[in-house]
Amino acid sequence: MRIVIVGGVAGGMSCAARARRLDESAEIVVLERGAHVSFANCGLPYFVGGEIAEQSALLVQTPASLQAALALDVRTGHEVTAVDGDAKTVTVVSAAGIDTLSYDALVLAPGAVAATPSIEGLASPRVRTLRSVEDAVALRERVDGGARRAVVLGAGFIGLEAAEALAHRGLHTTVVEFASHVLPPLEEELAALVDAELRSLGIDVRVGTAATAIESGEESDVVVLDDGTRLDADLVVLSVGVRPDTAVFEAAGVACVRGAMVVDEHGRTSLPGVYAVGDATASVDAVTGAVRPVALAGPANRAGRLVADAILRPERARPIPQPVGTAIVRVGDLTVALTGANRSALAAAGIAADTLHLHPGQHAGYFPGAAPIHIVAHVRRDNGLLLGAQAVGADGVDKRIDVLATAIRAGWGVEDLIDLDLAYAPPYGSAKDPVNMIGMVGENVRTGALRLWYAQELDDVAGSALILDVRTPAEVATGHLPGALTIAHTALRARLDEVRAAAAGRPVRVMCQSGVRSAIAHRVLVQAGFDSASLSGGMLTLRAVLGDRGDDVLAFGPGVAGRRSASLVHP
Amino acid sequence: MRIVIVGGVAGGMSCAARARRLDESAEIVVLERGAHVSFANCGLPYFVGGEIAEQSALLVQTPASLQAALALDVRTGHEVTAVDGDAKTVTVVSAAGIDTLSYDALVLAPGAVAATPSIEGLASPRVRTLRSVEDAVALRERVDGGARRAVVLGAGFIGLEAAEALAHRGLHTTVVEFASHVLPPLEEELAALVDAELRSLGIDVRVGTAATAIESGEESDVVVLDDGTRLDADLVVLSVGVRPDTAVFEAAGVACVRGAMVVDEHGRTSLPGVYAVGDATASVDAVTGAVRPVALAGPANRAGRLVADAILRPERARPIPQPVGTAIVRVGDLTVALTGANRSALAAAGIAADTLHLHPGQHAGYFPGAAPIHIVAHVRRDNGLLLGAQAVGADGVDKRIDVLATAIRAGWGVEDLIDLDLAYAPPYGSAKDPVNMIGMVGENVRTGALRLWYAQELDDVAGSALILDVRTPAEVATGHLPGALTIAHTALRARLDEVRAAAAGRPVRVMCQSGVRSAIAHRVLVQAGFDSASLSGGMLTLRAVLGDRGDDVLAFGPGVAGRRSASLVHP
Repeated sequence: MRIVIVGGVAGGMSCAARARRLDESAEIVVLERGAHVSFANCGLPYFVGGEIAEQSALLVQTPASLQAALALDVRTGHEVTAVDGDAKTVTVVSAAGIDTLSYDALVLAPGAVAATPSIEGLASPRVRTLRSVEDAVALRERVDGGARRAVVLGAGFIGLEAAEALAHRGLHTTVVEFASHVLPPLEEELAALVDAELRSLGIDVRVGTAATAIESGEESDVVVLDDGTRLDADLVVLSVGVRPDTAVFEAAGVACVRGAMVVDEHGRTSLPGVYAVGDATASVDAVTGAVRPVALAGPANRAGRLVADAILRPERARPIPQPVGTAIVRVGDLTVALTGANRSALAAAGIAADTLHLHPGQHAGYFPGAAPIHIVAHVRRDNGLLLGAQAVGADGVDKRIDVLATAIRAGWGVEDLIDLDLAYAPPYGSAKDPVNMIGMVGENVRTGALRLWYAQELDDVAGSALILDVRTPAEVATGHLPGALTIAHTALRARLDEVRAAAAGRPVRVMCQSGVRSAIAHRVLVQAGFDSASLSGGMLTLRAVLGDRGDDVLAFGPGVAGRRSASLVHP
Repeated sequence: MRIVIVGGVAGGMSCAARARRLDESAEIVVLERGAHVSFANCGLPYFVGGEIAEQSALLVQTPASLQAALALDVRTGHEVTAVDGDAKTVTVVSAAGIDTLSYDALVLAPGAVAATPSIEGLASPRVRTLRSVEDAVALRERVDGGARRAVVLGAGFIGLEAAEALAHRGLHTTVVEFASHVLPPLEEELAALVDAELRSLGIDVRVGTAATAIESGEESDVVVLDDGTRLDADLVVLSVGVRPDTAVFEAAGVACVRGAMVVDEHGRTSLPGVYAVGDATASVDAVTGAVRPVALAGPANRAGRLVADAILRPERARPIPQPVGTAIVRVGDLTVALTGANRSALAAAGIAADTLHLHPGQHAGYFPGAAPIHIVAHVRRDNGLLLGAQAVGADGVDKRIDVLATAIRAGWGVEDLIDLDLAYAPPYGSAKDPVNMIGMVGENVRTGALRLWYAQELDDVAGSALILDVRTPAEVATGHLPGALTIAHTALRARLDEVRAAAAGRPVRVMCQSGVRSAIAHRVLVQAGFDSASLSGGMLTLRAVLGDRGDDVLAFGPGVAGRRSASLVHP
């Protein structure tokens, strides 16, 4: 039995290792086009920034170590240029020439390649992607060699990691993103926090714009943006996305959808005996059912392992799970993480959802160091299923997103989050954990105990309703909506007549700082007969949505300047 | 509608707040025997240690703030001394005298009181529990007043928090625990790590012994242990457990089991219109079905909220979830957390389980600061259900235990953990998260791909099998089992003849440092026809189980002294 695996990083190498553990007798050949296998591709930006000091740390395994431990025949610098599915052979090109290798099972794990946008001058030697050890080494050499100005094209996960690494090394760094905000998969109300953090790191953030040309000069390049801006750059990182690297396999007859290989639940492609895993395959999204490639290491590793099972012990092979799409990135002092579907994925899938915004502390407020976690969660309107969640904060973000990813995998309704027994001691959480609180707010919305209005509706609301701000006078002075009636929630019951007079028959739309007190006030109002709703996420979310508009839209108490960015992240 | 709630901390106050949000018209009276409501009881040890600086931080709410925000009638210093279930009244004693209060619904949330062991001299004024703000203030005053020596009776969660706080304040602190190891709910192989950490904090740990008397002296007390040891103490913290505080209610006819009030899934007691929540109620354990009180804030809060629902909107009230028993404590630089059933709970319930030991890093090994998480997980033998998990480590422990608690709540088999999409970037995890790895090891055990042997079986194994140590020579030199054959796993395939000769027909029991390489070696051996098994958790777990015996049992390379405690926690 000879298993040939094309691609020796995440999915491919997981498959090879698992195959060996299942079968000592199999011949397992791994063909890797690049110079390295099993390298730490997620660590590349940290090597550029120097946080990972040694290049050797990126090389988790070598062909020799894999031969010794697992008797794997790993061949780097070997590119597969053709597959003959009938003859069950692959054509391999290497420094030694062209070879033909037969297989009993073929596993395709070619990964993705950087997308190349239509920008003139991309061939400049100062332009690099950040996909390989060679990329990272070249970028670091350029930084060590005195580069002072960097432009990063694309503000996705890797783009932001690269930008932070370069800024950390002292380069004047600009990030250019075509979408309307950084980290496009993130909701705008959270992306605003990331934007503020990037600026606090000294990074020049430009969104809603794209590079049109790179002009190569003697001393440096110039990146030209579509708004005419010209940015000098000693190096340019190209990070505008990836596409499956499947041309050879599609030509060989492997069925693809928009370039991604189609696989069944055991990783089988349309060709008998040919399997595929990882970034080059099309996955079915667990939440929306959308079919698209998911370029994440975790799902690739898991699929690789399961394909080995499918080849070597098919009777016990479990199906490859549909990815939930959990992802995370560190940005400065913040952690940014998301799981499941976001607003645009739900819109594309035609799934109606209620969105919740919360800002609970990562641990008990009375314990030193409490800091908010800014959370957005989507709940399916017709059945209450938790569809997706995102969070940004200084601490405890990864934990909550992992729990929520688990809840999504379990197919839970939002109210099931209430029941979770999560670990509580003052340094770690609260008796009502943020995850429990998502459940409570979600249940209240589902049962009608809570009705929300959204920051995005502000203009409509301001024109048709009384806005009631139930924060304290001191909070109101730090920024409030002009025209809002301000009554602290603790005084509300005694002053309902004032509300009634000011509303003059209009609906009342309540708000506070985070949405907790306005929810209490909403209950008071609705039981007193008002048409009431509570601002989801309160002023914290409103300010994030308003962004730079905030200082114009809001009114401030005497002596209080607009302090948008400071108050957003660490209020 | 008048709702009377007895007890104003976790469960009682959650019930009161929820009741108000559901119903503005209800009269809600909270009767609290103590001086404070809604105080931060989990924060008390941190106040003693000074990490929480101000007493005011412990007082999360006051009767006045609760009146203002939620129109609650909160009466501190009011003790309920009798309940008349027929007349629907309670008798209340306060500084103002004796009163009778009628109710439509009565919610009993009296909590627990400190268990009082049979120790002579407990009435000494130098002895205090750590259950109330007054306790914490008194202990801190004694520390501020120059106390130098402390004895903590009981090494449970609060006992350890108290001991660390006192040691942090510079007191010579001794912890006395009757069980055979600290934190009795923790498995011994993890408790050993906690023990080592306590010692590194300068705390004198004495297990398997109990105090028999406290002799009150002029200048200080003497705590006498059952082994004759006499410990001078300027203060003694009594923390040997709690019991439900239910005498009044049992006398009123509320059905109890071993002192804990019996409730149905909506918190209803045996008396019509009378509900109970929190530490004073008997819960059904979600994993084992055992019926006993669970003294944890989270479940109490959740039950309180649901009882309000049961009273005010019974048609939509969800059942109170069975507790999974998740708990956590910080000990020095370590986090210690557990969820679900432990070995002794499973034994008591007659549930056969396989136990897994893992020591994965909290994040990618190539990223700076990687440190192990020491994990124990129990898997039901007949159906593969995840039954419980515990973990100890410097970082990332709380996250993994919360995910595992969620998986237990979901009723998952261990192999379902493989499929979880958990957030991965180098600072946060690995492409194969520790939780995924528990699933992989568990699945391998379930399918027979992996067979384990346990450190607790060492004496038997050493007498009947060849022990094969597949670590590197450098690792072997740091401590190994005398008589073991040592062949690095990378050389094993070429040296199987040596193994066969050394085994001489005996089974082979493989081991490495953490259990990863020995699992690979096991696969090689079993496919070569050996009767093989892999040591669960490897040398790290073996050393924890051996404890102080380790330096005697193990052999060391030249120049290497036994370095048990140093290597255990941060190897």
